[in-house]
Amino acid sequence: MPHIEEIVRKAKEKAYQETDSEPDPSLTTAIQWPVTCEIGPGLEDAITCESKVGYVNGPKGWLIYCGLDTFDLSQKSSFEETAYLLLYGKLPTLKEFEDFKAKLSKYRALPSEIEPYLERLPIRENHAMTGLRTLVSILGMLDPDADDTSVEAQTEVVIKMIARFPTVVGAISRIRAGEKPLAPDPSQSLAADFIRMMTGKQPSPDDARVMDICLILHADHGINASTFASMVVNSSMSDMYSSLVAGIGSLKGPLHGGANEAVLHTLEEIGDPAKVDGWYEESRAKKRKVMGFGHRVYKAYDPRARVLHPLAELLSQRDPEIRKLYDIAEKLEKLVVGDLGAKKGVFPNVDFYSGIVYAAMGIDKAMFTPIFAVSRVTGWGARTIEYLKNNRIFRPQDVYVGPLRVEYVPIQERG
Amino acid sequence: MPHIEEIVRKAKEKAYQETDSEPDPSLTTAIQWPVTCEIGPGLEDAITCESKVGYVNGPKGWLIYCGLDTFDLSQKSSFEETAYLLLYGKLPTLKEFEDFKAKLSKYRALPSEIEPYLERLPIRENHAMTGLRTLVSILGMLDPDADDTSVEAQTEVVIKMIARFPTVVGAISRIRAGEKPLAPDPSQSLAADFIRMMTGKQPSPDDARVMDICLILHADHGINASTFASMVVNSSMSDMYSSLVAGIGSLKGPLHGGANEAVLHTLEEIGDPAKVDGWYEESRAKKRKVMGFGHRVYKAYDPRARVLHPLAELLSQRDPEIRKLYDIAEKLEKLVVGDLGAKKGVFPNVDFYSGIVYAAMGIDKAMFTPIFAVSRVTGWGARTIEYLKNNRIFRPQDVYVGPLRVEYVPIQERG
Repeated sequence: MPHIEEIVRKAKEKAYQETDSEPDPSLTTAIQWPVTCEIGPGLEDAITCESKVGYVNGPKGWLIYCGLDTFDLSQKSSFEETAYLLLYGKLPTLKEFEDFKAKLSKYRALPSEIEPYLERLPIRENHAMTGLRTLVSILGMLDPDADDTSVEAQTEVVIKMIARFPTVVGAISRIRAGEKPLAPDPSQSLAADFIRMMTGKQPSPDDARVMDICLILHADHGINASTFASMVVNSSMSDMYSSLVAGIGSLKGPLHGGANEAVLHTLEEIGDPAKVDGWYEESRAKKRKVMGFGHRVYKAYDPRARVLHPLAELLSQRDPEIRKLYDIAEKLEKLVVGDLGAKKGVFPNVDFYSGIVYAAMGIDKAMFTPIFAVSRVTGWGARTIEYLKNNRIFRPQDVYVGPLRVEYVPIQERG
Repeated sequence: MPHIEEIVRKAKEKAYQETDSEPDPSLTTAIQWPVTCEIGPGLEDAITCESKVGYVNGPKGWLIYCGLDTFDLSQKSSFEETAYLLLYGKLPTLKEFEDFKAKLSKYRALPSEIEPYLERLPIRENHAMTGLRTLVSILGMLDPDADDTSVEAQTEVVIKMIARFPTVVGAISRIRAGEKPLAPDPSQSLAADFIRMMTGKQPSPDDARVMDICLILHADHGINASTFASMVVNSSMSDMYSSLVAGIGSLKGPLHGGANEAVLHTLEEIGDPAKVDGWYEESRAKKRKVMGFGHRVYKAYDPRARVLHPLAELLSQRDPEIRKLYDIAEKLEKLVVGDLGAKKGVFPNVDFYSGIVYAAMGIDKAMFTPIFAVSRVTGWGARTIEYLKNNRIFRPQDVYVGPLRVEYVPIQERG
């Protein structure tokens, strides 16, 4: 699919033209504890740890995994290779990669003991992430090595989960559609097989490659809330399954993983490119937040959106309904960026175009956040294991602003 | 049981004699964001939020819930009333308390849909907290209101879980012992019924009252790792079950909830009061950490240990084996405090005597951390809901110290 590679290459070219791409070495200096921080609400700008896993440069709009630009990884690598990179800090040799892929293949099938839970749990009646949370917790109970907290054992659990999340999420998608879960096909890439297990249809090579890129681009992103939740849980030396279950719980929220589903709702609500202007005027008047724009860290264009934008355009060509959503999105982007881009650093984020991409693949909106989890489990695992190597339990402070010296009055005497 | 009240009153008296008990108003000033912090590893001293739920004064050794001293609550209140206090910020009137207790009573029984999971899940083969994590996740799937993220709905979930955690943990304890789970008896206090559902035996009034005090004392403790994990998960606006599941996962770790189990292992390993000196000498020589001493926040005597120490003494009188453990603990405390107390602020923490108390009640060590969860679910809920009212998603920073500009070399050309 040289055209997809070419699309990504051009997206990189555009990004590098628009932003100064010289690394600022002062941003990557080792921490001298204690470190002085100006903290905002939500621990904004509080420093948690050093990392060699990933680097988000918000002002410039870079996303780097272990030194490699995610534009290059999207163009040239695969999700499997990117997962190896994040876990081991370097790209694999041919032999290392064959071994890693063999391990992934071995782990892709779920243990048969999970089947009664797939049948009995009220998966259709719940948020897809709630089912994922419970099923991963049960997978932990079925894994005799779950409580081995060594780096080696926890890395093995992460590899297992990178292999199994597509199978579990595929099963949830099928159960929600009233169908039987499908067994994995290890002869296919994780991305291609993942689409097949979700939709029941063999995806086109284009769809498989674009999903692969989506999984690459969502794999890691600094100390976001779900990664942070995983790290906090593991910092008591609990176990990797407990950490990943926390990550799933956090990603479930509409302020985090749920955002691309919300974007698609917005685009569908607008319904027609001709209505974008009116809708946006009204949003401004009502001071309603437009989903899919702006980011706590990025003040430049989100590099992931740079890649997903033209890929959404590519995939939307095949279906007039999807094309309409794409046209609405493009028009909305122009309005918002024209309004707030230069002034406030508000640009489309990763969630703005990913929903259109998944919808074009025929995937139900309810599965968008679980797709994110299938990718991000890599970052949860890589960051949590990195922190484990130099672990200290997380224990920040609050400031008490309540009363002091309240007397205990017997209940009969209370007003 | 006036003797237990008297024991707690004396513990308070001693605490107030030994430490300056005047509140320092500078410690309770509203935050002006952004706030400058000197952060250590593990986010030590990083400020997350204001709180009116609880106040830990580490240098002075105070633990305050909504203005009330936990010594007073231990002496005069109950876990049910303390739970109300933490959730609503004030002690209830008679009417409010009757309504609250009626609600707890209504919720204590588990929905019948959970039974097949209690039967089928490999609960005996797993850490008790792993079973709790999974069962609470399933309870979330059975609750049609689980995804209502309003303050009211999330408060209702917390009340449900305060009522149900004892029943679930009781069931886990019974299953581990090869017995059938017991149904709750709402005519009893949560504490008394909890012991009964764990051990299968009706506890003595002393045991029930001491468990009540243990649940009061473990209910909240600042932004500890499990409370923090719950808050981080909820900050994406996910849901309360996901938050509590994260709290359970975090508390499971030996650096957090698992510590009192480790203390009991130590005391059993020493085995005899006559061997304490030799054991401690060896520990010092090997620089082995002695479990149950020291605390990230307390540099004075942990007020919870002040209460639990004499209660452990009281309950240990009935059984020579427990008495021996108590004597070992007392001797070890004298050695450690003599060595490090004045010099380094190392005193027994809450975990040092709680294990002896639970062992005296005939409770299996494996259940110690779940007991902690039965109490701390209150703090997880209260703090998470408090943060929700002024929510901002948690998203701190890391410092990237890895390479930049690593070129993507095709796999055939890698060394």
